[in-house]
Amino acid sequence: MRDTDPYPVNFDQRDPAPGVDPLFVERWSPRALRKVDVAEAELRTIFDAARWSPSCYNEQPWRFVTSTPASFATFLDLLVEANQTWARNAAVLGFLFADKQFARDGSDNALAVFDAGAAWMAMALQARRLGLYAHGMAGIAWDRAHAALGMDPERYALCAGFAIGALGWPESLPEPARAMERPSPRRPLAELWRQLD
Amino acid sequence: MRDTDPYPVNFDQRDPAPGVDPLFVERWSPRALRKVDVAEAELRTIFDAARWSPSCYNEQPWRFVTSTPASFATFLDLLVEANQTWARNAAVLGFLFADKQFARDGSDNALAVFDAGAAWMAMALQARRLGLYAHGMAGIAWDRAHAALGMDPERYALCAGFAIGALGWPESLPEPARAMERPSPRRPLAELWRQLD
Repeated sequence: MRDTDPYPVNFDQRDPAPGVDPLFVERWSPRALRKVDVAEAELRTIFDAARWSPSCYNEQPWRFVTSTPASFATFLDLLVEANQTWARNAAVLGFLFADKQFARDGSDNALAVFDAGAAWMAMALQARRLGLYAHGMAGIAWDRAHAALGMDPERYALCAGFAIGALGWPESLPEPARAMERPSPRRPLAELWRQLD
Repeated sequence: MRDTDPYPVNFDQRDPAPGVDPLFVERWSPRALRKVDVAEAELRTIFDAARWSPSCYNEQPWRFVTSTPASFATFLDLLVEANQTWARNAAVLGFLFADKQFARDGSDNALAVFDAGAAWMAMALQARRLGLYAHGMAGIAWDRAHAALGMDPERYALCAGFAIGALGWPESLPEPARAMERPSPRRPLAELWRQLD
């Protein structure tokens, strides 16, 4: 476990229901990250947490590809400019793909992307357990990432990019990102869940 | 917090890396469920945990629809027969949809299903925190669920079904489900995560 956050994070915009584990509420997506040393063992813990996610026929379609210091610039180049601005301070960059074929018979796995989303959640939560943050990104080079990372576009659906790092100071961000640098609120639960009588 | 599992679950097939939070490893998908009373407050806690999941532009595209005792049979009828066999003993059945349109401008949300997968993971983990289990299902009536649950098929992608309940006895299951009733193993991490130099 590394040093804690450099400032007390303000969760005033979050109103969890009673009984919700703080792990969920205290996961958020800062842009101000610090390029701390993240040991390979820590990354292993993060992606191994994702490994235990559920999937259709236990297919485990998620495929994580992450940067090393040597390849960081290659990964950074696969982000849109607005994300590069802050993600250059991340410790590790990565992309998540979903295998669209069932290993058992090569048929289409219609749940692949959904299941990869579950694995992404697990890795983001486990990162928090280690005192780190994972920030997902849709602003990525959707047309270039497969080739740059050696992934067959026919077989693997690109799901998202992500940055991992320790929390940094909001002052390191340009506006408007600086003003947005706090855990975001949510819609009322009634918009997201209903019981059908 | 309700009573614990009726038997000690055998996690011998699971080999997590050091440091992985047991929450991830101890989440699994039993078929033998018990129809315990699940209070509305407990369901609220489960779906509120999902509410804090990350999503593209904080869109929160996940939409959960769950059964009450009055509508349970309607939900059960939306499962394939093999799932009905065990899911009839669940406390609550549900379906998860993803809003394919951004609320901001009605444009396509390409991340909707992926983000719904994250919310599904959060609800499954929070269920465990309450001593309950969530079991996802792809064996559902993909062609009938929208109409039965009042969801516009043009707007909402059906992602999965799920059953919630307390753990039951494996002896309640027919074969081959009975023999499979234990936490499943996973591929080696090296198949799921690689670092690119």
